Amino acid sequence: MQPIVDFILELDRLKGVTRKTRPLGLDRYENSAEHSWQLALLALSLAPYADAPVDIDRVVRMLLVHDVGEIDTGDTMFYVEDGWEARKAAERAAVTRIFGRLPNGDGERLRELWEEFEAGETAEARFAHAVDRAMPVLLNLANDGQSWRENGISHARVVARVAPPIRAGCPALWSYLEGRLEAARRDGWFGTDERGAPRA
Amino acid sequence: MQPIVDFILELDRLKGVTRKTRPLGLDRYENSAEHSWQLALLALSLAPYADAPVDIDRVVRMLLVHDVGEIDTGDTMFYVEDGWEARKAAERAAVTRIFGRLPNGDGERLRELWEEFEAGETAEARFAHAVDRAMPVLLNLANDGQSWRENGISHARVVARVAPPIRAGCPALWSYLEGRLEAARRDGWFGTDERGAPRA
Repeated sequence: MQPIVDFILELDRLKGVTRKTRPLGLDRYENSAEHSWQLALLALSLAPYADAPVDIDRVVRMLLVHDVGEIDTGDTMFYVEDGWEARKAAERAAVTRIFGRLPNGDGERLRELWEEFEAGETAEARFAHAVDRAMPVLLNLANDGQSWRENGISHARVVARVAPPIRAGCPALWSYLEGRLEAARRDGWFGTDERGAPRA
Repeated sequence: MQPIVDFILELDRLKGVTRKTRPLGLDRYENSAEHSWQLALLALSLAPYADAPVDIDRVVRMLLVHDVGEIDTGDTMFYVEDGWEARKAAERAAVTRIFGRLPNGDGERLRELWEEFEAGETAEARFAHAVDRAMPVLLNLANDGQSWRENGISHARVVARVAPPIRAGCPALWSYLEGRLEAARRDGWFGTDERGAPRA
């Protein structure tokens, strides 16, 4: 029992990894644990709209563990492109250590889900990526573009980064978001990348 | 797509419902969204120790939605016994409204999982209750009894409230916790109920 307890207490640290988006109506930043919870429920809700039939329970498990590597590295904003490979290597070392605490192959199965998400090749991983990319967009659309403004992210940059994964995993969701993002652009909810994106 | 978006944005409010336990190493209180995430992973890890064979994916879904009613009512500490029925009625109204936003019976299926958890009768619900009761105990055991001390909760009261559900859903976990709780009592990590438990 002790290895499982050690594992779940180490996971507790994901509650302290903060993202750039604020929960609606709150001053603080969102953390990666509550974000993962919300993604699991968004995936369950959107399952009928997945690009290809998916094992939705596998998607849910994948989303519950997809950010665990951040326990060592912290969250890096999706729009920061530098240092991606070094960061992924550090995350992989973290998940190997953390999931390695679990006995009887249970940890190995969770680590495989993390790897499957990273590879982004299966129908489940593509759908999970779509959900992961869409959720902060939905929060920003409900938040007057809070994290786009705070970080000087342009409409063009958002579309360039989120359109391909969302379209690939959940095309109906992209059709919906495309119009909402265009309306947000007209409303001035984006920054200009010339102001410079942050380095995390 | 809009009903699903409205649903996931309403769920966002669970990130603002705070509990009495603090995440390890953080000053703030835990919220019910990140708590739900952690329970899902604890359930996945403990599945081989469930009292009876369970559909673990059903348990995971159940734990992801079990606190959604708190969006309207806030969290009430497990040790507060007054007003339980009125509170449950308010939670039920909340989940009916919130899950009712989803189309095509998806919301109804989630609402049924919430009801199944509340009833606590199926093997899945009993295991989910064990996990839900055990997690704050594990955090307190790693936190020098933080929420027990802050709220004046005695060892006897903790054992009386958590032993039956944990023993019923995951007996091996109770065997482990019983000794840890006794050691914590010797270390003085509990309050005395004479100081009075808080009314939430």
